[in-house]
Amino acid sequence: MTGIDDLPIRDELRGKSPYGAPQLDVPVRLNTNENPYPLPEALVARIAERVAEAARGLNRYPDRDAVELRTGLAGYLSSTAGHPVELANVWAANGSNEIIQQLLQTFGGPGRTAIGFEPSYSMHALIARGTGTGWISGPRRDDFTIDVAAATAEIARLRPHVIFICSPNNPTGTAVDAATVLALYEAAQTAREREGGALVVIDEAYGEFSHQPSLLPLIADRPLLVLTRTMSKAFGAAGLRLGYLAADPAVVDAVQLVRLPYHLSAVTQATALAALEHTDTLLGYVEQLKAQRDRLVTELRAMGCAVTDSDANFVQFGFPSTHPGAAGESGDTPPADQQAIWQAILDHGVLVRDNGVPGWLRVSVGTPAENDAFLDAVRAVLKENKR
Amino acid sequence: MTGIDDLPIRDELRGKSPYGAPQLDVPVRLNTNENPYPLPEALVARIAERVAEAARGLNRYPDRDAVELRTGLAGYLSSTAGHPVELANVWAANGSNEIIQQLLQTFGGPGRTAIGFEPSYSMHALIARGTGTGWISGPRRDDFTIDVAAATAEIARLRPHVIFICSPNNPTGTAVDAATVLALYEAAQTAREREGGALVVIDEAYGEFSHQPSLLPLIADRPLLVLTRTMSKAFGAAGLRLGYLAADPAVVDAVQLVRLPYHLSAVTQATALAALEHTDTLLGYVEQLKAQRDRLVTELRAMGCAVTDSDANFVQFGFPSTHPGAAGESGDTPPADQQAIWQAILDHGVLVRDNGVPGWLRVSVGTPAENDAFLDAVRAVLKENKR
Repeated sequence: MTGIDDLPIRDELRGKSPYGAPQLDVPVRLNTNENPYPLPEALVARIAERVAEAARGLNRYPDRDAVELRTGLAGYLSSTAGHPVELANVWAANGSNEIIQQLLQTFGGPGRTAIGFEPSYSMHALIARGTGTGWISGPRRDDFTIDVAAATAEIARLRPHVIFICSPNNPTGTAVDAATVLALYEAAQTAREREGGALVVIDEAYGEFSHQPSLLPLIADRPLLVLTRTMSKAFGAAGLRLGYLAADPAVVDAVQLVRLPYHLSAVTQATALAALEHTDTLLGYVEQLKAQRDRLVTELRAMGCAVTDSDANFVQFGFPSTHPGAAGESGDTPPADQQAIWQAILDHGVLVRDNGVPGWLRVSVGTPAENDAFLDAVRAVLKENKR
Repeated sequence: MTGIDDLPIRDELRGKSPYGAPQLDVPVRLNTNENPYPLPEALVARIAERVAEAARGLNRYPDRDAVELRTGLAGYLSSTAGHPVELANVWAANGSNEIIQQLLQTFGGPGRTAIGFEPSYSMHALIARGTGTGWISGPRRDDFTIDVAAATAEIARLRPHVIFICSPNNPTGTAVDAATVLALYEAAQTAREREGGALVVIDEAYGEFSHQPSLLPLIADRPLLVLTRTMSKAFGAAGLRLGYLAADPAVVDAVQLVRLPYHLSAVTQATALAALEHTDTLLGYVEQLKAQRDRLVTELRAMGCAVTDSDANFVQFGFPSTHPGAAGESGDTPPADQQAIWQAILDHGVLVRDNGVPGWLRVSVGTPAENDAFLDAVRAVLKENKR
């Protein structure tokens, strides 16, 4: 039988595994930052209606430029993210992963590099690899915030073509303030001034859950600043695969050069448009999740867990045995074996995520009942560990 | 205002335009090889039903491996394409364009090359560019068939990593016989024997319309032979963006290394599954289109047009003034200005496609009424040209 290793695949792919969280059949799954609230039935009905309409013309190619959808997304951002944007500022694709891929195909690629400050969303590095872009792992402080002096020094030294800033950061949870973004943006433009600058991508996939306002207004007069968003989290539509970006119209024009023609299906466009009609209801769920998120942070800290400040729909936490203080006050004890804790929590019927950050795990915010189950599991594991 | 040229995009993208046929508002549009038959209402209802079901779980990520859909596609190929395939042989993505992109990211990419025999489907070259794969334009005979001796010589000389064979070929319309594919496959494996061989991709997007059986059986015992298909044409679902491949399971495993996780939305999977339930009805439309296609070939030839043999849902034709004989019997007259003829036909209300093949145009097979309108337009233009 032929195996992957028998095939003439690219050398850098040899021995790699496909990306993806383990999918286990567990009562409470809080591992992939999904929104726990199913779409309301009124929206399900509206999706069926709009998709049926689209299906009647399915023998034709979809609107290649997704004009109606991009206009709707621009309206959503304008009314919720503190800065007016228009059709020409917005581009949409199959998940923000495809948006990132298109950006790297246009501004990264062979002979070019991208930097991210890790731990961060691991797909940035993986999509860099998939597009032949060199990857630079930039630094973070022990409390997972970005050290502006260290980060700008790396940018000046290595002159990357693309800079990723994930805010709120996944898997650590904390949002990045505007001053940090601006410092990195300036450093990136200075480093590549002669070559016309560098692209700075703010990945705001969890933006709607943040305590701080969106960083969207920063794109004004900064043609190389791009904000990416997704409908997977705030719109409760991970299954829809709809990501988008807001930027200067020139960036939207540029990604047209690499986008696959008709990349966004008519059914995807129809479903996303239906979801936009129900924005208010869906953002109501976001408010509930934010309250539950803050509750998880408070209760975990009260139990003695280390918890990183969270602006997302997930919380990064570590166990007290090895994290004697709050985030950032690192002691001298070696980090806890997060793999053992992950397994212990799973043994109590709750699946959380081990993102490979030593000593830390990530839990998605679920329904109140799911969060109760998670907190009960943590309580039980803490008790077991004390024995 | 910032323009693309002010941005630090990749050098090879500078000055390029996005791919895409001109979209004009014309009574009869026969330019993009769409299926002219809308989906039957029973299927539209079934799509709405399946999508509503999917929408109820839309807050969760879709099945990353699309198991149900791939199983359905395997069943379809097994029963219609003359060779049994299973789930493990099949992979699906957002249009065959994304399939091709994944194959090139895995087997092509920077420092590697791909060859296609042109004129052929222009996205092969464009996706090569987008993935950093070097592109080699291989030869065809004047009658647009592949010259096996010339093609294998080029493969031996340039040792490409990926070989594209489009059958039926777009835009010329003729299918490639199995002997030609096997000769090219052997040449490709011999040329890169030391490096483990080369990937040969048969693009059978129009396979269901061919006079000859599918080339699918050739994948048996040839782990580097891949067949790609789409639901855009035979299933009348260009708006769905559902492409797929059949190959050795090792190839399916290999593309997992570059596929974006959860690339295929739950609504796309649901819609495609609904369409598969209606395969028999949709293949009935294919039979009607094949009959109309043969009629177009016959009538165009009767009018004195040059026509390439067609196994697709489109016909390549040239005007008699410069194509005195049938395809392949080229005279000494310079090729007709196909741009002028394209415009003249458009002036009669019918949009056909100028794929940039000197002297030739391509018309998609429409409904009988649309084909009548096209033939009337050709007749009128021929008359005008005689004046």
